[in-house]
Amino acid sequence: MTTAESANLTTMNQISSIILPEPTLRRLPWYLAYVEILQKMRIEFVSSTQISRALSVDASQIAKDLSFLNIKGKTRIGYEVNTLGETLADFLGFSRSHKAYMIGCGSLGEALIRDSGLSKYGLEIIAGFDIDPAAVGRQDLGVPIYHIDRIYEIMEKNPASIGILAVPSEVAQESADIAIGAGVKAIWNFTPYRVKVAEGIVMANTSIYAHLALIFNRLNSIDR
Amino acid sequence: MTTAESANLTTMNQISSIILPEPTLRRLPWYLAYVEILQKMRIEFVSSTQISRALSVDASQIAKDLSFLNIKGKTRIGYEVNTLGETLADFLGFSRSHKAYMIGCGSLGEALIRDSGLSKYGLEIIAGFDIDPAAVGRQDLGVPIYHIDRIYEIMEKNPASIGILAVPSEVAQESADIAIGAGVKAIWNFTPYRVKVAEGIVMANTSIYAHLALIFNRLNSIDR
Repeated sequence: MTTAESANLTTMNQISSIILPEPTLRRLPWYLAYVEILQKMRIEFVSSTQISRALSVDASQIAKDLSFLNIKGKTRIGYEVNTLGETLADFLGFSRSHKAYMIGCGSLGEALIRDSGLSKYGLEIIAGFDIDPAAVGRQDLGVPIYHIDRIYEIMEKNPASIGILAVPSEVAQESADIAIGAGVKAIWNFTPYRVKVAEGIVMANTSIYAHLALIFNRLNSIDR
Repeated sequence: MTTAESANLTTMNQISSIILPEPTLRRLPWYLAYVEILQKMRIEFVSSTQISRALSVDASQIAKDLSFLNIKGKTRIGYEVNTLGETLADFLGFSRSHKAYMIGCGSLGEALIRDSGLSKYGLEIIAGFDIDPAAVGRQDLGVPIYHIDRIYEIMEKNPASIGILAVPSEVAQESADIAIGAGVKAIWNFTPYRVKVAEGIVMANTSIYAHLALIFNRLNSIDR
C-alpha cells in the first residue's frame, strides 16, 4: 500500500465513524444508485442540480449530505462521478465485508440467504441458525445451518457482528436476546414484532408487513 | 352470508378505506404481531397498558391508533384478543388476497417469490416478468415468468394491482413506468433507486440497502 493510499484509508475510517443523521443515511444509497447509473452511461461529472432533478431531492440538501463525506463539487463542473461512487460505497460500508448470522431459516430466512444481492452490498451471511430439525444441517443453502444452541460455539470459531432476525414473532425477542448474548452487536429485524435491545446494540427494522399494510390501505382508498 | 355478517363486512370496507396516517399504519402490524403471540398463549383479554409495556408505545397512542379501527377496550378488562386480532388483520388487508407481479426475477425477485410468508399476509404473487432469457420461461418458481413485453397481454388475462420492483437500479424507473402503463396501481420498490410515479399511484419503498448502510454506520461508530 502506498502512503497516499494508507492516508486515504485513515481518512475514510475517520469519516465513516461519524454518526450520521438517519435521513441522510437514507438518502446516501439513492445517490449511490444514481451514480452507478451514470457510471454505466460513462458520464464523468454530475452537478447537484442534476442529482436533484433525477431524485427529487433539494439540491442544497444534496450538497449538505455530501459535505458530511468531505466531498465537494467543483463550480460549473460538479462532482466527479467515479470518486463520488467510490466515496459513497466506502462510506456506506458497502465495499467492506460485514459478517452476519441468519437467525431463523424458514421461508424468509432462506430467501435472504439465497439473495446474492446482499453480498454485493457488503453483507456476508456466514451461517444460519434454527431449531427446526428440517432446517438444521441443511446443505443446500451454501452456508451451514446450525441448531441455535450452538451459536456460542460457532461465534468463537467464526464470529459475526450482525444477527438477521427472520423467526416467528413469538420468539423474536428471545432469539434476539440469544444472538446478542452470543456476541452480535447489531440486530436486523425482519419480524413484525418490536424487539427491544440494550443501549449500545444497533437495531434496524425492515418492516415488510408494515409496507404491505400501507400499500393495501392506500389501494383500498383508491378503489372507492 | 347472514345479515349480521354482511353488515359487518360493509363496516369493515368503510373502515379500511380510511386513509390512515403512516405512523399509525406502521404501528398496527406491531399490535397484530403481539396479539398473535397472546393468542398462542391463549390469553383472552389485553389492556392498552399491557400492550404499551410489551411494545414500548405510549398507552394513549395505542388507544388512539385503535380508535381509528372503531375498537374500544372495556374498562378494567381491556380489549378482547381474538376480536382485536381479526379486526387488525382485516383492517390491514392481510386477510384478503392482493394480486401482484414480480418485476425482475433475479436473486431478490426470486427470493421474494419463494417467500411463502408474504401470502400469509395477503400478498399473492401471480406472475413474474424479466428480460433475461435465463429467467423467462422458468418453471421452478411456482409462478410463470414472462418476458416483460408480455405484461399488457398477461394483465388482460390475469390482472394484478401491485408491481413489486426488484430490477437493477438503472432500469427501475422504466420498469415501473411499464408496469403502471400496463395497469398496476401500486409499486413496491425494493431497488435503491428513487422511482417517481404519477399522483394516484401508490408507492412504497423498502430500502434494504439504506437499512444496511444504517447498520454498518452505527456498527462502525461502536467499534471505535
